[in-house]
Amino acid sequence: MSKIPVGVLGATGMVGQQYIALLRDHPWFELRFVAASPKSAGKKYKDATAGRIHYPGVDETFGELIVSDANDVSAAIAAFKAGDCAFVFSALEMGKDEIRALEDSYAAAGIPVFSNASAHRWTSDVPVLLAEVNHQHTDIIPIQQKTRGWDKGFIVVKPNCSVQSYTTPLYALMKAGYEIKRLIVSTLQAVSGAGYPGVPSLDIVDNIIPYIGGEEEKSEMEPLKILGSIDGTGANEAGLIKNAEYPKISAHCNRVPVIDGHTACVSVEFGAKKPSVEEVKKIWAEFRSLPQELKLPLAPERPIIIREENDRPQPRKDRDADKAMAVTIGRIRPCNVFDLRFVGLSHNTVRGAAGGGVLNAELLKHKGYLR
Amino acid sequence: MSKIPVGVLGATGMVGQQYIALLRDHPWFELRFVAASPKSAGKKYKDATAGRIHYPGVDETFGELIVSDANDVSAAIAAFKAGDCAFVFSALEMGKDEIRALEDSYAAAGIPVFSNASAHRWTSDVPVLLAEVNHQHTDIIPIQQKTRGWDKGFIVVKPNCSVQSYTTPLYALMKAGYEIKRLIVSTLQAVSGAGYPGVPSLDIVDNIIPYIGGEEEKSEMEPLKILGSIDGTGANEAGLIKNAEYPKISAHCNRVPVIDGHTACVSVEFGAKKPSVEEVKKIWAEFRSLPQELKLPLAPERPIIIREENDRPQPRKDRDADKAMAVTIGRIRPCNVFDLRFVGLSHNTVRGAAGGGVLNAELLKHKGYLR
Amino acid sequence: MSKIPVGVLGATGMVGQQYIALLRDHPWFELRFVAASPKSAGKKYKDATAGRIHYPGVDETFGELIVSDANDVSAAIAAFKAGDCAFVFSALEMGKDEIRALEDSYAAAGIPVFSNASAHRWTSDVPVLLAEVNHQHTDIIPIQQKTRGWDKGFIVVKPNCSVQSYTTPLYALMKAGYEIKRLIVSTLQAVSGAGYPGVPSLDIVDNIIPYIGGEEEKSEMEPLKILGSIDGTGANEAGLIKNAEYPKISAHCNRVPVIDGHTACVSVEFGAKKPSVEEVKKIWAEFRSLPQELKLPLAPERPIIIREENDRPQPRKDRDADKAMAVTIGRIRPCNVFDLRFVGLSHNTVRGAAGGGVLNAELLKHKGYLR
Amino acid sequence: MSKIPVGVLGATGMVGQQYIALLRDHPWFELRFVAASPKSAGKKYKDATAGRIHYPGVDETFGELIVSDANDVSAAIAAFKAGDCAFVFSALEMGKDEIRALEDSYAAAGIPVFSNASAHRWTSDVPVLLAEVNHQHTDIIPIQQKTRGWDKGFIVVKPNCSVQSYTTPLYALMKAGYEIKRLIVSTLQAVSGAGYPGVPSLDIVDNIIPYIGGEEEKSEMEPLKILGSIDGTGANEAGLIKNAEYPKISAHCNRVPVIDGHTACVSVEFGAKKPSVEEVKKIWAEFRSLPQELKLPLAPERPIIIREENDRPQPRKDRDADKAMAVTIGRIRPCNVFDLRFVGLSHNTVRGAAGGGVLNAELLKHKGYLR
Repeated sequence: MSKIPVGVLGATGMVGQQYIALLRDHPWFELRFVAASPKSAGKKYKDATAGRIHYPGVDETFGELIVSDANDVSAAIAAFKAGDCAFVFSALEMGKDEIRALEDSYAAAGIPVFSNASAHRWTSDVPVLLAEVNHQHTDIIPIQQKTRGWDKGFIVVKPNCSVQSYTTPLYALMKAGYEIKRLIVSTLQAVSGAGYPGVPSLDIVDNIIPYIGGEEEKSEMEPLKILGSIDGTGANEAGLIKNAEYPKISAHCNRVPVIDGHTACVSVEFGAKKPSVEEVKKIWAEFRSLPQELKLPLAPERPIIIREENDRPQPRKDRDADKAMAVTIGRIRPCNVFDLRFVGLSHNTVRGAAGGGVLNAELLKHKGYLR
Repeated sequence: MSKIPVGVLGATGMVGQQYIALLRDHPWFELRFVAASPKSAGKKYKDATAGRIHYPGVDETFGELIVSDANDVSAAIAAFKAGDCAFVFSALEMGKDEIRALEDSYAAAGIPVFSNASAHRWTSDVPVLLAEVNHQHTDIIPIQQKTRGWDKGFIVVKPNCSVQSYTTPLYALMKAGYEIKRLIVSTLQAVSGAGYPGVPSLDIVDNIIPYIGGEEEKSEMEPLKILGSIDGTGANEAGLIKNAEYPKISAHCNRVPVIDGHTACVSVEFGAKKPSVEEVKKIWAEFRSLPQELKLPLAPERPIIIREENDRPQPRKDRDADKAMAVTIGRIRPCNVFDLRFVGLSHNTVRGAAGGGVLNAELLKHKGYLR
Repeated sequence: MSKIPVGVLGATGMVGQQYIALLRDHPWFELRFVAASPKSAGKKYKDATAGRIHYPGVDETFGELIVSDANDVSAAIAAFKAGDCAFVFSALEMGKDEIRALEDSYAAAGIPVFSNASAHRWTSDVPVLLAEVNHQHTDIIPIQQKTRGWDKGFIVVKPNCSVQSYTTPLYALMKAGYEIKRLIVSTLQAVSGAGYPGVPSLDIVDNIIPYIGGEEEKSEMEPLKILGSIDGTGANEAGLIKNAEYPKISAHCNRVPVIDGHTACVSVEFGAKKPSVEEVKKIWAEFRSLPQELKLPLAPERPIIIREENDRPQPRKDRDADKAMAVTIGRIRPCNVFDLRFVGLSHNTVRGAAGGGVLNAELLKHKGYLR
Repeated sequence: MSKIPVGVLGATGMVGQQYIALLRDHPWFELRFVAASPKSAGKKYKDATAGRIHYPGVDETFGELIVSDANDVSAAIAAFKAGDCAFVFSALEMGKDEIRALEDSYAAAGIPVFSNASAHRWTSDVPVLLAEVNHQHTDIIPIQQKTRGWDKGFIVVKPNCSVQSYTTPLYALMKAGYEIKRLIVSTLQAVSGAGYPGVPSLDIVDNIIPYIGGEEEKSEMEPLKILGSIDGTGANEAGLIKNAEYPKISAHCNRVPVIDGHTACVSVEFGAKKPSVEEVKKIWAEFRSLPQELKLPLAPERPIIIREENDRPQPRKDRDADKAMAVTIGRIRPCNVFDLRFVGLSHNTVRGAAGGGVLNAELLKHKGYLR
C-alpha cells in the first residue's frame, strides 16, 4: 500500500516538529509538504529550523523539504494536485481569528484539516476528537461539509493538552454506568505546553507559576463538548454538537519545572451509584475503545495504565508509556470530601498534541474520510 | 533586659539550623545550648555540622558551642541550672515514640518544650499552636501541667509545615462569620520539607512526585485540632482539646522541584452564608490577630498578604514576604464547583517550622509562661 | 547630609530593577528619576513593570515615579536642573551603537553615566572599572572630558558580569608580586545573566548550554583593559587606556540552570616566581583595596572570601556573601598542567552588574567627581 | 544461534538496572542471573527493586527472576553449571577492597567479569577497555589468566563515566598522527553519575557543586592507562599495562542539575605538529574503529558525531545520539591559550557505564573469549 501524503502547517514550531517526528516512520502517512510563517517560506526545512530543533533528527530526515507559506493556501492546493498533500495537520501559531479563517480556507479547498489549535474548538459543527472517548463525533463531518458547502475538506480538532489525563478515565467510568457529577482538578503542567521560547527559565527554576492563561477555562469546558452528543440534523437547522451538562469541573492549572508530561490531581463526585476503588481499577485496567479494536498504529494498547506504587505516576518516569500515548493513573483512593481521588498523567506534546492529532487522522482514515 | 537563654534539640538538622539562624539576632532569646544525636555529642557545633550547613553563617556565629547529647536530659538540666537554657526548641529527628518520651522527659524536668515534631500533635492535652489562629489554646497548659504533675515544664507543638497556607486564611473567614464546610486542596511542596538529604535529585529534576508519606493525613486532620476548643476541665477528667468537626478536608500532596515554599490550590465550600470575592479580600487584607497586636518580634505585620497579579503567589518571589512569616494569597476567584478558589503560599521552614516555633515561644513569653 | 539624587536608565529591565533594589536604602544616593523605552514612558513605574518585577518590593517603594523616555535626553536634563538627577546608572538594552550614542548624549549634557552596557567597554578613554582592581583608572576622566569637550559629564563602565570571579583574585596575586602568564577558565553562568525573558526553560531544565554569545570574548579581553594602564596624555594625542598584554586567557562559557551566581573553574600559569597554595590563600584572605579602606557603603568587608570545604563555593549558598558583593573562592589546589587551580564565584546581577555599578559611583563620589 | 546467558552483579542499583535495560533486547546475550546485596537475596527482582526502578519496564521483563546473594559466589557457579550464566557484568556497590576480592573470586571460579567498578582499574594486568580506543589491550587477558592461574575466568573493567567524552576524540587525533601534550578539561556531570539516592535535591536545585570526590583523579589518570601499552610478557615477570606519559591532564569536575549526560569543556595543546580546525573535524567525522568494523550490536555507527551549531552539544538534546553510545562534539575552535578547544558530551550511564560494558563484552565475544 502506498502511503498517504500529508502536510504540516506551522511545521517549524514545537508541536509542528513533534508532528514531523511522529510521521517519520508512520506506516500509513508520509510527510511531503511543510508550511510555516512567511519568514520561513522558501527556505529548506533544516535552515528554517536551525537552532530551534527540539526533536533530534527531524531536521535530518526532512531537512531538504522546502517550506511553503502557510498563509498562502494555493501552495497547499498545488501540492494537493501534485499528489503531495492529501490532508494537513495544523499546528499554526497565530491569532484565533486568523487560524479559524485559514483552516476554513484549506478545508474549503478540499484539504481536510486536523488541527491542534484552539481556534475551532467551540465551533459547533467541528468535533473535538479524543479518539477513545468520542470517536462517534466524526458523524458530524458530513453535516459540516454539507452546511458549509465543502466537498471533501473538513475540520477536526483535538482538545487542549491537559484534558485527557482525566477525561479518558472519567469517560471509562461513565461508560461503565457511573454518573459523574462534579470534579475538582489541580494540574501540574510541563513547560513544553507553552511552546518555544515559552516559559522563561527565570520564572520557573526553583519556582512554580499558579496560572496559565485560558487553561482553566479549557480544562473545565472542553470535556463537556467531548462528552456531548450530536444534535439537530434536520433540513432547516445545522447539525451541532450539544455539550454535556455534567460533570461540573473546577480546575487549578499550575506550571511546574518539568519538560514534558501534565499531571492532574483529581477529586470526583459520583451520582447515586458509586463504584468501589477496586471496581474503578478494574474498569480502567480493562478499558479499551475503538482505536484499540482497530489497532490503529498510534493507539496505545491500553489507553489507561494503572500504577500501584504509591508515588506514581511521575512525569519523567511515566510520560513515555506506550509510545507516550497512554494515560497513566495512580494513587486511586477514596476522597475525604468527594468519592474518589486519583492522579492522572499523560504526555502533553504527544498524547496531548501531535500524537492525539495523528491518532485522529488514523481514525478518520479507517472510517474512509481520507483518500 | 537580659535575654532568655534557650536551647535547640536536633540542632544539627535542617530545621534545627533554621531555628539557630532565626535566633541569631533575636531580641528576647539567646541561643546558649545545642543538643543533637550521640554521634555529634561532644563536638563543636561547627564540626558537627561541617559540610551540612544549609543557612550560611550559623556555623560562624555559634560554631564554638559544644553539642550535647539530646538523648541525655541531664545535660539540659545542668544547662538549665547554670542559667543557659530556660526552655528548648525541639527539632528532633527520630521515631515518634522516642520523641514523645524524650520531650516528656524534658518537660518533666521543668524545661518547656516547643516542638516541631509531629509526635505530640495528637496528644489531647498538647496544643498545636498556630499563633494567629488558636492562641487561646495556651489555656490548656496549666491543665497539662496539673494532669501530668509537671511543675514549670510543658509541651507545645506547631502544626505540619503545609497547613498554615490555607488554615490561617480560612480561620480569618470563620472569624468574620462565614462557616466553612468543605475544602479540597492540592499542595505543591518544596524539597526542604523533607529535610536533608531528603529527596534525591534523581527523583525531582524534571519531575514531580505526587505523594508525600503521611502528609495528606496531617493536612486534613491537624486544622481540625487547631480550630477545636478546650473541653473538660472538671476535677475528675483531664482537660483536652476537642477537634472541630468542620471543615472536611481532602488533600492531594505533591513534591515539586522548589527549594523553599509550599503552595496550596484551594477550593472552598461555605455554609449557607457566602462572602463575595471582594468581601473575602477585605477580610484577609484586614486580618490581624494577637501576635500582631502584641507586636511580637517574629509576627508578620500582616499575616495575610494579597497579590492581585494573576500569576502570584510564586514560591521564589513570595516565600520571603515579611520575614518569611506571612501567608501570601492570590488568584482569589469563584470556584466552578464549590464557592471560592484561591492559591496560598508560605515558607515551609520558617513560617511552617522554626519561625512558627519561635513565634509560639514569643507568645508564651508574653503570656508569662517563660521566665 | 542630603542624599544625591540619581536616575536609572533602562529602569524596567532586570538589571535596572536590581539597581533600584540596591538604591532603596542607600545612605548616599536617592532614586528620583527613572527612564525606559518609549512604550513605558509616561506610565507609573509600578504599571510599567506590572507582571515583570523580579525583586519584590521595588514596585512598592518607587511605584509612583513616572517613567521618562530614555531616548529623550531632555527629560533627564530637566530632572537634572530640577535637582532630581545628578547622575545616571545606565542599564539600557538596545543596539550597541544606539547605546553608545545615547550615553554620549547624557554625558555631553553634563550628566555622568555609570553604564552596565558593553557598548563603551572598548572605547579607549572610557575606564572599565572594577573598583578593587583599577580604581586609579578614574584618572582618565578629566582627559575624557577634555578630549570630548564635556564639562561635568563623563562615562564610566563596569565589566561583564563574569570577569570579577577570577580577575579580582588574580589581581591580588599580581599585586603581591606574582606574574600571571596564562589562564584557562570555564564558567558556569546563571540564567539571570541573560536578562528577562532570556533563556527559555525548554533550553535549560535538565540541560546546560555550552555557549553564550560574545561572552568568551568579553571574558578573555576585558581583564586586559582592567589590568591595563593609562597612556598618552600629551597635547596632541588623546589619553587612552592601554591594555595589559598578560594574562592570556582562554574561556569556555556555559549556561547552567542556576538563577543567580556565576562560577568559574580556573587554571593559572604563573611566571617564574610561583606562590605556594598557602601563600595564595594568605594573599587572598588579606587582600583589601581602596573601597575597603574608604569603607564605601557597598564595598564588601573582604573582597575575597575563602571557603575551606572541598565542595564550595556553590551558587545558592555563597552568592549572597557580604551583601552579594564578595567573590567566594574555594578548591584552591595545585594544577596538574599549569600551577594553580581554584573555583571562584560571585553574584552576577549584584557584584557583576548593578552592585558593581553602585560601588563605582560610590568611589567616584569619594573622589569628588559627583556633586 | 542461541544466546549466551549472562548475569548482572549489583542488579538492583542504578547501573545494574541500566545493564538490564540494555540486555532486554540484546541479539547475543540473554539475562538469566541477577545478584545483589544480601538484603535483596531470595526476593523476586521486581520486589527487590520496588519503588526504586529507574528504567521503566525492567521490572516487568525480568521481575520474576530470583535475586541471588552477590557475596556468595557459589550461586553464580551453580548458575554457570546450569548454563544460566556464562559471564557477569559487575555493577557492585561496596568498598573497593571487597569488590576487588569478590570480582577475583568470580574470575577464579571461571566466570569472566566485566566490571563497572573502579576497584580494579589500577590493577596492572586488568585492562581498562574503551572499545574504540584500546581494543588491543584484550591481549593482556591470557597473561592475566596465566599469572593468576585462572582458567577461563578473567576481569575486564571499563573506565570512569567521564573519560570517553574527551579520550575518544583525542585518541582519534593521536591515531591521525598528532601528538597531544597537555589538556585542561572542565566537566559538567549529571546527577545519575552519583547513583541513587546520590545527590540530594537540596544540594543541586538552583545550584552546582564544584566537586565530585575522586573524580578529578580518575579523569586525569585513567586516560593514561587506556592510551598505554602492554609491556613485560617475559617468563619471570608479570605482563602489565604501562601507562602513557602523555597527555598531562588537569580536570575540574562539577556536578550540575542534569539527569543524564556528562559534558566536558576541553582545551588541548598539541606537539609540534598542529592540525587545523578543519583537519580536526575531518578526522573526527571519519573516525571508525574495530567495534564499527565488526558492526558490534551496541557500537555506534559513528563513534564521534560533530554538531556545527554553536550551542551544541547539549545533554538533553544529544545524550541519546546513536543508542546513547556516541560522543557528540561541538564548538570546535582554536584555543586562546593552547591550540584547540571543543565541547564533548556522552551519556554517562549508557556509553559511560552499562553500555560501555556491554560493548566490551561484545568485543570479547567476537575475539573468542566468551563461549
